[in-house]
Amino acid sequence: MCVYPTVSAFPADGRLEGFAPVAVDVLRATSTITKALSSGAVAVIPVLEPEEALAAAQAHPEGTVVLGGERGGLRIPGFHLGNSPAEYTPASVEGKVVLFTTTNGTRAIRRAAPLGPVYILSFLNVGAVAADLRESGRDVAVACAGTRGELSLEDVACAGALVEALGGPDGSLELNDLAWTARELYRSYRDRLAELLHIARHGQTLVALGLQEDLVTCAQQDSLPLVPVYRDGQITL
Amino acid sequence: MCVYPTVSAFPADGRLEGFAPVAVDVLRATSTITKALSSGAVAVIPVLEPEEALAAAQAHPEGTVVLGGERGGLRIPGFHLGNSPAEYTPASVEGKVVLFTTTNGTRAIRRAAPLGPVYILSFLNVGAVAADLRESGRDVAVACAGTRGELSLEDVACAGALVEALGGPDGSLELNDLAWTARELYRSYRDRLAELLHIARHGQTLVALGLQEDLVTCAQQDSLPLVPVYRDGQITL
Repeated sequence: MCVYPTVSAFPADGRLEGFAPVAVDVLRATSTITKALSSGAVAVIPVLEPEEALAAAQAHPEGTVVLGGERGGLRIPGFHLGNSPAEYTPASVEGKVVLFTTTNGTRAIRRAAPLGPVYILSFLNVGAVAADLRESGRDVAVACAGTRGELSLEDVACAGALVEALGGPDGSLELNDLAWTARELYRSYRDRLAELLHIARHGQTLVALGLQEDLVTCAQQDSLPLVPVYRDGQITL
Repeated sequence: MCVYPTVSAFPADGRLEGFAPVAVDVLRATSTITKALSSGAVAVIPVLEPEEALAAAQAHPEGTVVLGGERGGLRIPGFHLGNSPAEYTPASVEGKVVLFTTTNGTRAIRRAAPLGPVYILSFLNVGAVAADLRESGRDVAVACAGTRGELSLEDVACAGALVEALGGPDGSLELNDLAWTARELYRSYRDRLAELLHIARHGQTLVALGLQEDLVTCAQQDSLPLVPVYRDGQITL
């Protein structure tokens, strides 16, 4: 099992051929995507730019699409929803397609996509994703979104939760050095994940924006036992 | 304090202006450099390519220069010494200039050099480097060499030892997310660093080459309380 700290560090040279790809952006894209699907969204379509989302919305009948996402942590002008999991309730997304744009999360998903359908990982669903991956028997490669091109604490810790969940009692997984580091980090903070998210630089940014509630939500391990998968340009269960 | 996982991840865009740069390649370049200087080498000159070392040797009077370094973990044909700290004894290097070529370590040192004189860090001298840095009062940026372009466990753990040593009782350092992760890793393994080096991928490679003794040597924290610094193309105390 291999974990990579940032989008650009995720190898695109073919050496991960055959690995099951996983993308994680705990704060907040992959948490919010999981929440949206749990609230009954038909699909989440990740797009890189707000303009792309607005253009794609034209292709759908009126009332069937919700525009969601953020820039600088905040809702994009003209969009229905921001990037807080709490906004993605049945009232706002049930039966709808969510066109979703966040910088790092979308890039991580797309970077991993050449390997095949991409598992969408967050603390909310790590147990469910691990169960699915274990059943597949495949080796696993995790693309952490990171923050502004640097490794982020919350993504690495969540990757570590996946390492731990996949490890089983014999601990026989072959790990790259960051996977090992990630598991150590997770083990140190498994009982205080919300605290870890407050320590993380991006967590501090969100707190400064008044979004501290999101940190608590995104730390609720295994609260949404779902397995969202990105394939053919959209994320579904 | 900021820690970066690989040479290419170390920012070269000016944002670290004013930071004291530190380079670490526990297995084995920075450990071996420290050992060479402790054994009385006048200076260690890091060069990228063996040809560069051979050419540079011509500029020195015969008998004043030692060629050291590795490719694929092994001594380079025509060189006097490999990259094992144990080879760098007073008998082999005292009073001499060491022309030294290793891939990752040399790159890390050169990458950090635009920020000013680069501290050479290993477990062997982390306490001494920390004392010097603390006295300087400067913020610190650590370039981990990594292994084949990926984060390596041993470099991150050593950076974590530096974070811990710099932290002091109040723990008031401002840390980037990898610096935080590094300190956690170090705290988990501080009493079994040799074990950690055996877990690391590059450690396993060295064991396969019969170089396990080097792992034990490189894990001896604070056994050589020296502060090697790279400036003007050479490393001296």
